[in-house]
Amino acid sequence: MKEVEVKCPATVANLVCGFDILGMALQEPYDLMKLRLIDEPKVYITNKDEYDLPTEAEKNVAGVVLLAIMEKMDNKFGFEVEIEKHIKPGSGLGSSAASAAGAAVAANQLLGNIFSNDDLVQFAMFGEKLASGVKHADNITPCIMGGVTLIRSIHPLDIIQLNSPPLFVTVVHPQIEVKTSDARQILRKEVLLKDAIKQWGNIAGLVAGFEKGDTDLIGRSLEDVIIEPVRSILIPGFDEIKTRSKEAGALGGGISGSGPSIFMLSTKETTAKNVEAIMQEVFHRLGIDYKTYVTSIAKNGVEVITGQ
Amino acid sequence: MKEVEVKCPATVANLVCGFDILGMALQEPYDLMKLRLIDEPKVYITNKDEYDLPTEAEKNVAGVVLLAIMEKMDNKFGFEVEIEKHIKPGSGLGSSAASAAGAAVAANQLLGNIFSNDDLVQFAMFGEKLASGVKHADNITPCIMGGVTLIRSIHPLDIIQLNSPPLFVTVVHPQIEVKTSDARQILRKEVLLKDAIKQWGNIAGLVAGFEKGDTDLIGRSLEDVIIEPVRSILIPGFDEIKTRSKEAGALGGGISGSGPSIFMLSTKETTAKNVEAIMQEVFHRLGIDYKTYVTSIAKNGVEVITGQ
Repeated sequence: MKEVEVKCPATVANLVCGFDILGMALQEPYDLMKLRLIDEPKVYITNKDEYDLPTEAEKNVAGVVLLAIMEKMDNKFGFEVEIEKHIKPGSGLGSSAASAAGAAVAANQLLGNIFSNDDLVQFAMFGEKLASGVKHADNITPCIMGGVTLIRSIHPLDIIQLNSPPLFVTVVHPQIEVKTSDARQILRKEVLLKDAIKQWGNIAGLVAGFEKGDTDLIGRSLEDVIIEPVRSILIPGFDEIKTRSKEAGALGGGISGSGPSIFMLSTKETTAKNVEAIMQEVFHRLGIDYKTYVTSIAKNGVEVITGQ
Repeated sequence: MKEVEVKCPATVANLVCGFDILGMALQEPYDLMKLRLIDEPKVYITNKDEYDLPTEAEKNVAGVVLLAIMEKMDNKFGFEVEIEKHIKPGSGLGSSAASAAGAAVAANQLLGNIFSNDDLVQFAMFGEKLASGVKHADNITPCIMGGVTLIRSIHPLDIIQLNSPPLFVTVVHPQIEVKTSDARQILRKEVLLKDAIKQWGNIAGLVAGFEKGDTDLIGRSLEDVIIEPVRSILIPGFDEIKTRSKEAGALGGGISGSGPSIFMLSTKETTAKNVEAIMQEVFHRLGIDYKTYVTSIAKNGVEVITGQ
């Protein structure tokens, strides 16, 4: 029986100023997923983790992606799936994207790599739609392609891989719940033109900074005048962590996706570790459970580890 | 007596989606300006063109820039200026920026290049403030630095030179009046978040396209969902020119600055000339006088041609 195992990286969507368009893949944490092709046109899901996610295909992020692929191929086959999640659902680290992108890439591998990256992003968006109600691609795209990615447009889909200097990423996931749908609802439908202009100056600076490998420019551009001022209210300790991390030498950072995780970028591993200590100290003091990671930008997206 | 002569290029601000942050210098048209240092702390201006611009220093774009530089240097000297404008005022091609940036660069040359590019942009913004009521730098910056430039932020000033592939630029200046101040007033103060997201996707795509030298990506990103739909109403023939230019192979384009000039980018000179013919045909049919240029992105900004 044909089987593949894939490693599905966590991702940071938005990258502070790039709401809905920018994303970045991380070395850690990551999910593992095994996929087997079966003759029966069904999807059987087994959870190998503690999260007790639904195993009915129609209610499972990986499941709906596989159903979409099966439908595209006239339901001539099905899949058995084992999912071992390490990216906690609701962390803001692209947990659903890892399942959706992992399923799409693993299925494609089993089928002889017949689909393009654009196709895989389209399939994986069915999973995001199930998870958050919105077909967004800012976690899926870096999860599939690795590195730092730009979604210029969803209709039509236009995804661009950006260059990136090697950077360390410190992440803290405070164990509080912020639902993506809630985090979207608190945003205003209209923004001031003058704020939008500031935002696109920073986005342009951030893209130029990544392309040029100019880490100072990346740092100066990590400023969000539209989304962060609203969403950061939902995350205790946010302002203190951001201020102290920058004082400790981090380039900058902010909310990962719709939160509650916070990420900070640094050029040096020692800085990234000092930032971790700050994050730990703040959430310890606040009495909020947390998990931290000191990692780096992943060059690769979903990786096939066996069954190549 | 110390004298310098400078060549001050026309510029295209905004570059379609990059309202207030992006700009580009052109090979043509350009102004010429001669500047002489004098002992008396005054500015004497002579016009060598047909435009009859004010010669009182306080009312002249170059004049106010020179007064600002003199004040910075404790009014220990003054300037004689001869201005030969070829960039028509009110064309949307950075006529005031050419005078302001030209005066700043020429004065700096006479003073032994004591000021940085940032200083020169700051001085030249006094000229833009006089011309349009707003201290904007999206024409001044490319006029001083050449090529394609990004203003990430005005406060504090943060200017970044972008890479750019060699591109041909076709420009038409229909001889109708669109005042920068009017063109600003018709803009809404608020924009929909969903439109802002589309816009920053395009800006990110445009910056990535310039940095990567990806002309297709530049073309796809030359889309403005916020400013152009409002401002283009002021320019007869705009939609037809844009549609037909793209059909003829142009990458794309739009309003130059606040108009009324329209610019189109092409990778080939033959395409740029075909675009010119389309522009000529449209404005001829509309019975509007016009002037066209087939030129290219200027690598250099204001150039000192004598007195180096």
